[in-house]
Amino acid sequence: MSLLDASLIADIPLFQGVARQDLVELLSKAKSERYVKERTIFNQGEDAHSFFLLLDGHIRVVRITPEGEQVIVRYISSGELFGIAHALGLDKYPANAVSAVDCVVLSWPGAIWKSVSEKFPAFTANTYKTVGARLQEAQDKVVELATERVEQRVANAILKLANQTGKKTEDGILIDFPVSRQDISEMTGTTLHTVSRLLSAWEQEGIVKSGRKKITVIEGHKLAVLAGGDQRS
Amino acid sequence: MSLLDASLIADIPLFQGVARQDLVELLSKAKSERYVKERTIFNQGEDAHSFFLLLDGHIRVVRITPEGEQVIVRYISSGELFGIAHALGLDKYPANAVSAVDCVVLSWPGAIWKSVSEKFPAFTANTYKTVGARLQEAQDKVVELATERVEQRVANAILKLANQTGKKTEDGILIDFPVSRQDISEMTGTTLHTVSRLLSAWEQEGIVKSGRKKITVIEGHKLAVLAGGDQRS
Repeated sequence: MSLLDASLIADIPLFQGVARQDLVELLSKAKSERYVKERTIFNQGEDAHSFFLLLDGHIRVVRITPEGEQVIVRYISSGELFGIAHALGLDKYPANAVSAVDCVVLSWPGAIWKSVSEKFPAFTANTYKTVGARLQEAQDKVVELATERVEQRVANAILKLANQTGKKTEDGILIDFPVSRQDISEMTGTTLHTVSRLLSAWEQEGIVKSGRKKITVIEGHKLAVLAGGDQRS
Repeated sequence: MSLLDASLIADIPLFQGVARQDLVELLSKAKSERYVKERTIFNQGEDAHSFFLLLDGHIRVVRITPEGEQVIVRYISSGELFGIAHALGLDKYPANAVSAVDCVVLSWPGAIWKSVSEKFPAFTANTYKTVGARLQEAQDKVVELATERVEQRVANAILKLANQTGKKTEDGILIDFPVSRQDISEMTGTTLHTVSRLLSAWEQEGIVKSGRKKITVIEGHKLAVLAGGDQRS
């Protein structure tokens, strides 16, 4: 019997339309785990033994190139699935997952994905909506990398993080987990030097404030203009 | 009653595991259409009125940026679904679809996606495998754009097209539909000038042969080395 209560996940959009008793059954198959920050949850290329739901925290999804370069593919926020290789028809994880802060995670054995997906169609449909949204996001990023200047890409990455995880503070919108300049460079395909140069310039103009692994957006509108948000719908 | 025979689609991997009578029912809801080359099948932002299966030909999927720049997101080959906005949880097409050659296409009303996906689970599961594969592909491209030099990206794009659609000829592997230097530049986020410079250099080295909208790979191994295939698994 599981000690996890259905109220843990009932309010997560992913479980919208899933009956209470199905939530209970889903949770009875789950294991909850804690990861302190900067812990690897799974590695790229590893057999996909489990799929995961982030209950609390932030997870960094990182691809490693054959040359050993790192690219941050996305950040996972609480309430989101990750490591859903089986739903994508893969049997190995396509990237590393690393806790950016202390995290609480539910995990299910990968082997039950098929039966779970057949048994809980509302959950499955929501999962595939997530996959669809990530496909859109990845294609947006392809377009961004192919057409935008470095300055736009960096501005966009910071805006996206502020939207996804921003917390209102006295100074402005603080990105609610540690983000280093190196992280921004790995998100945007830019050198560390360029990210530093841009952040320093924006800091002088009062657009952002940044410290060690901390970024606060002060003038979101100006950042949106830099990101090309002006001409966007 | 439909005039389309189940044999039209029975051998397509997408329909693997779908019972014959289900194929017949699926086809009874489909409409077949012909598009001469360079015809727009749907536009980015348009209501997703239909979803499509390419029976024969090649389709170019193109994103237009707010600034009017074009990026070729992928090519669709025969046997593949496209315009599956509904399966992604979208109600508008996220890109343009244009016939790169004369095409034969099946289309279904978008409104029936939900009932079709519930009624034919094998087809649905295969569709989501496709979506998963495209997510992987898009993330590969993000990594490529973020880390690879222009030369690698152009070599990679040509190799991929040759693998996806190549036809053996006397000279080597011919990409089996018209591809211009402009197309390659829109696939790789590179200027037309750079693509022309690279192709001319590779032509002098006997690696490829290219004419108006025609590219033949002569020395695939050398191209793979340029693409960084050396160090890849």
